[in-house]
Amino acid sequence: MLIRFAGLGLGAASFTTALAAGSNYANVVDPTYDASKFMAEPLTPRSTLVKDKDDIKVKMELFIMKIQADFCRALENEEDPSSKFFVDRWTRSEGGGGVTCVLQNGKTFEKAGVNVSVVHGVLPVDAVRQMKARGKDLIGKELPFFAAGISSVIHPSNPHVPTVHFNYRYFEVTQENGEKMWWFGGGTDLTPYYLVEEDVSHFHSTLKKACDAHDNGYYPKFKKWCDDYFLVSHRNERRGVGGIFFDDFDKKSKEECFEFVKSCAESVVPSYVPLVNKHRNDPYTSAERDWQLLRRGRYVEFNLVYDRGTKFGLYTPGARIESILMSLPVYAKWEYMHSPPDGTPEAKLTEILKNPKEWI
Amino acid sequence: MLIRFAGLGLGAASFTTALAAGSNYANVVDPTYDASKFMAEPLTPRSTLVKDKDDIKVKMELFIMKIQADFCRALENEEDPSSKFFVDRWTRSEGGGGVTCVLQNGKTFEKAGVNVSVVHGVLPVDAVRQMKARGKDLIGKELPFFAAGISSVIHPSNPHVPTVHFNYRYFEVTQENGEKMWWFGGGTDLTPYYLVEEDVSHFHSTLKKACDAHDNGYYPKFKKWCDDYFLVSHRNERRGVGGIFFDDFDKKSKEECFEFVKSCAESVVPSYVPLVNKHRNDPYTSAERDWQLLRRGRYVEFNLVYDRGTKFGLYTPGARIESILMSLPVYAKWEYMHSPPDGTPEAKLTEILKNPKEWI
Repeated sequence: MLIRFAGLGLGAASFTTALAAGSNYANVVDPTYDASKFMAEPLTPRSTLVKDKDDIKVKMELFIMKIQADFCRALENEEDPSSKFFVDRWTRSEGGGGVTCVLQNGKTFEKAGVNVSVVHGVLPVDAVRQMKARGKDLIGKELPFFAAGISSVIHPSNPHVPTVHFNYRYFEVTQENGEKMWWFGGGTDLTPYYLVEEDVSHFHSTLKKACDAHDNGYYPKFKKWCDDYFLVSHRNERRGVGGIFFDDFDKKSKEECFEFVKSCAESVVPSYVPLVNKHRNDPYTSAERDWQLLRRGRYVEFNLVYDRGTKFGLYTPGARIESILMSLPVYAKWEYMHSPPDGTPEAKLTEILKNPKEWI
Repeated sequence: MLIRFAGLGLGAASFTTALAAGSNYANVVDPTYDASKFMAEPLTPRSTLVKDKDDIKVKMELFIMKIQADFCRALENEEDPSSKFFVDRWTRSEGGGGVTCVLQNGKTFEKAGVNVSVVHGVLPVDAVRQMKARGKDLIGKELPFFAAGISSVIHPSNPHVPTVHFNYRYFEVTQENGEKMWWFGGGTDLTPYYLVEEDVSHFHSTLKKACDAHDNGYYPKFKKWCDDYFLVSHRNERRGVGGIFFDDFDKKSKEECFEFVKSCAESVVPSYVPLVNKHRNDPYTSAERDWQLLRRGRYVEFNLVYDRGTKFGLYTPGARIESILMSLPVYAKWEYMHSPPDGTPEAKLTEILKNPKEWI
């Protein structure tokens, strides 16, 4: 599916919407959810969230609000107490909105972004056409849709702490004949600067466990999909050591699919945060920092040249660019003909990026 | 025209070619050219260059070799004597090649790249299709072509010295019916970090003078084309303060068109190098350096997301990626929601990037 939330921030900006994200949230205690545990008020008005609490749209929105808060808090626990997430809740005149959480220039994290988007609206003709081209059997030209997703990229300061990215999303489209289509998509992937095999195994094992709880076939399939997707093809190397990636996920019941996505999203903290904790105080040299910046240049190349979500967002008039490009690092570097000498840790990583392997 | 040398380095890499760039250059004195004045031996064998010396292909190759050397020497004059261009002459098994000159981490220039490419071969179906889509009336599927061009991006160290880019190219395609089509393309554009109006006027005036010597209509037309082309549309701002840009240039005789391109390329040194000389020792603050890096992030966004040459190169299997991406700066930076305060020099520049103006 093309529309996968533009990395961070929903590339769904110019769509008209029937839903106004109002500011009149009643400050009442309601059993449906406790917004004090979120980073901000959800996007959908409380009245709708309470009324439609059994609707998957509501469940997904409340779930990603919770994941956002859990992840932000877990990252803050690895930070200097003075560095906290800046919370930017935004709504769009065209409808919908998001909650963008950013922590920049921290001690542990150079740039950490965790973005939630919830948008109702009408898919423009071009988007429908692209979805059809990618295999979606949609009937109609401009179709009402709903999309809710969480997306995050974490660029740590220390080159021995890997970068992580994850994105989980739910999509609904109503066709001209009134038929509703829905699907989930998402993934979590790791981009280390230095390869510590046991760390990568831990990361992949945690994802595999989340997958295996639902279907033993998921992990191998989605692991390969991830290796295939995060390819910087002009360099014939992957962005990192992969993880899982899936899209158009709709073969089981809505509830079952949602449960799978929940397991995946809930595995982000245990798969990643221990690696931060383990390495955030590792000593490092300026040469290692330099290598980290060069690899971040490659990260920029992937995101700007290949990432479908980013591209979709950039080409969507009126998209919230700052939320989309929050995935970019603070600093990146390019050097003509840089190639790490054989036998170095840098060359070892490069080798793995060119030839992805099994980690479990 | 889509195929415009991939920023730096010809995005024409997977093409098969009839011309082998041999290494058997006779070291003889010949009136046709004196290779000792170039940065390296030309790409086409000396015997061909001598035999076909009145052919526009040969004239263009020798001309861009000369422009490359003149520009590199002029830049070296602004550098610490210990910083010289590294000369990388490359040939491709598929045919053709280039001379890539790079000066990195100098005192005046953080990264200066000047690339010449000369390629013969067969245009793949996709390229022909794209050229047709853009208005070229080509007959056939896979067409023999010749392309010769020079491309350069200069990223200075001091934020008060602007970045410059230029690219001049000649293209020939032989259609299935044997008919030969040819055209020139190119341009020079300036990207300052701080606006000095008289500098921008000097730059534009020098380009205008080169244009006016051939046709008074060229400068206004190509100035506007440049403003339109170098648009970072997701931010609705130009990459810089423009210059000139043109393509499919073939309305006069081949010789007349070549003379125009020569004037343009010869105006690079006088339009730009005085600005380097004027500002390379200006004092600057770390905040100004930071602003320069943020603007370089925008430069990366333009080159990776929009530049047709870069995109064509990246999507061409086997293209020489390092020559294409030599246009990227050493360092770039991104900050969430960065916006310069009103009334600052940074805000003044941003205003001009959003609303291009006439400089003469």
